[in-house]
Amino acid sequence: MTSPYRARLAALVAERGNLCVGIDPHESLVRAWGHAFDPAGVERVSRDLVEAIGDRVAVFKPQSAFFEAFGSAGLGVLARLLADIGQAGALSLLDVKRGDIGSTMAAYAHAYLSGQTDLTADAITVSPYLGFGALQPAIDLAHASGRGVYVLCRTSNPEGGQVQQATAAGRSVAQQIVDAARECNEQSGQHAVGLVIGGTHAQLDLDLTRYFGSILVPGIGAQGGTVESLATLFGRAVDNVLPSASRQVMKAGPEREHLRAVLDEVKKT
Amino acid sequence: MTSPYRARLAALVAERGNLCVGIDPHESLVRAWGHAFDPAGVERVSRDLVEAIGDRVAVFKPQSAFFEAFGSAGLGVLARLLADIGQAGALSLLDVKRGDIGSTMAAYAHAYLSGQTDLTADAITVSPYLGFGALQPAIDLAHASGRGVYVLCRTSNPEGGQVQQATAAGRSVAQQIVDAARECNEQSGQHAVGLVIGGTHAQLDLDLTRYFGSILVPGIGAQGGTVESLATLFGRAVDNVLPSASRQVMKAGPEREHLRAVLDEVKKT
Repeated sequence: MTSPYRARLAALVAERGNLCVGIDPHESLVRAWGHAFDPAGVERVSRDLVEAIGDRVAVFKPQSAFFEAFGSAGLGVLARLLADIGQAGALSLLDVKRGDIGSTMAAYAHAYLSGQTDLTADAITVSPYLGFGALQPAIDLAHASGRGVYVLCRTSNPEGGQVQQATAAGRSVAQQIVDAARECNEQSGQHAVGLVIGGTHAQLDLDLTRYFGSILVPGIGAQGGTVESLATLFGRAVDNVLPSASRQVMKAGPEREHLRAVLDEVKKT
Repeated sequence: MTSPYRARLAALVAERGNLCVGIDPHESLVRAWGHAFDPAGVERVSRDLVEAIGDRVAVFKPQSAFFEAFGSAGLGVLARLLADIGQAGALSLLDVKRGDIGSTMAAYAHAYLSGQTDLTADAITVSPYLGFGALQPAIDLAHASGRGVYVLCRTSNPEGGQVQQATAAGRSVAQQIVDAARECNEQSGQHAVGLVIGGTHAQLDLDLTRYFGSILVPGIGAQGGTVESLATLFGRAVDNVLPSASRQVMKAGPEREHLRAVLDEVKKT
């Protein structure tokens, strides 16, 4: 077993900064890099990005949907990308938002957290519509393998409140996810359970006290959030925030030195 | 464009009966069929199952997790299985439970509902933790391509109530999903939006009046539900129920005639 995800993340963030670079190879980006929008083009953009800046980034977050969109060939590209991220000394946080129950959830965990498949990442995102407890097989495997699980909690899209702000016994669904993650982390001591929380809310209405897992905050830049505004939004928990930017960095390609310069700039904002 | 999913489903169910056969190639099943638990073994079990009973089944429901568990090679197996299901004249309902927002949700929709990738199915399952409205790109593509989308609504696992029974303005999350699906179906007239509802609840606490989409009810047999009990649970909506059984059928293999006999038996219960 490698050391726990949370510890590996903290060490890398201390060294390389806390910016997570999302790899979302949209058609417009792939074409802007001078490639056809096909599996080969997506592969070049994604892997060349890691080649250019992989030594300066703590975490890359490939968005699985953009690889799945090319069918089984796209998953082969994703596998090679994940290998590159590891070789660059960065962590891979694969954004797959899986969620199921029982042996099916265990199969997803095996796919992405076991170290026994070519789609294994250092951490993945998961979705708790079937209840936080249904995610246990993934959390168990994350603990056993020194990997991480980020649970969708409170997203910034306007439709998200329908589910995430519904309440039971006076607590919102999102707060229940926070509390369950905190309890889980306190029990294991590994803090392997992270949360996904949007960064563009006017206020959060979440009590994050005593929650020390990592908080993935997607869409810095493109979706309107700024690194500065995070301190206001998250209060003390801002120390655990992993802000993620994708388009803002990727659009700087394909030229290597320009990518590295823009990365440094985005890190500072 | 082919004709709408709901119409194709109704025609096939009238001809072959309403049993949906889940393809969940667990390790124990693959070994019981006499194969190693590897991509080749999973491929043989899954494709031989369709070869044996594909002419008598309206819908097959492959569980994506059991293929993803073998990494990118597993997705190649899934692609070949989906092709077989189509060639057998059956519908494929791929259980992937995807859910995201915006262009990412659109990428998932393209992967599984466009007809342009080898992972395209006739219908997929989706997860609404980010709100029903976030699923719109998948619903739009389903309408445009004559395919279907089954939205997770009220599952039978004990942890599901944490999210699904939370309430906003007096309505449970699950009921909000029902109501949104009904409105969507009334607007399109296609009834392409199905629901996933567990069959083992003592009672449902859901108002399904005027909802005419398909209702996938997983786990008949193995998870304790029976086809008989569905009438009690679903009332008039039972006509739209697509009961799904997996292990009960798959454990009858690999002998073809035995599989066909057991299938006929399961259909009758």
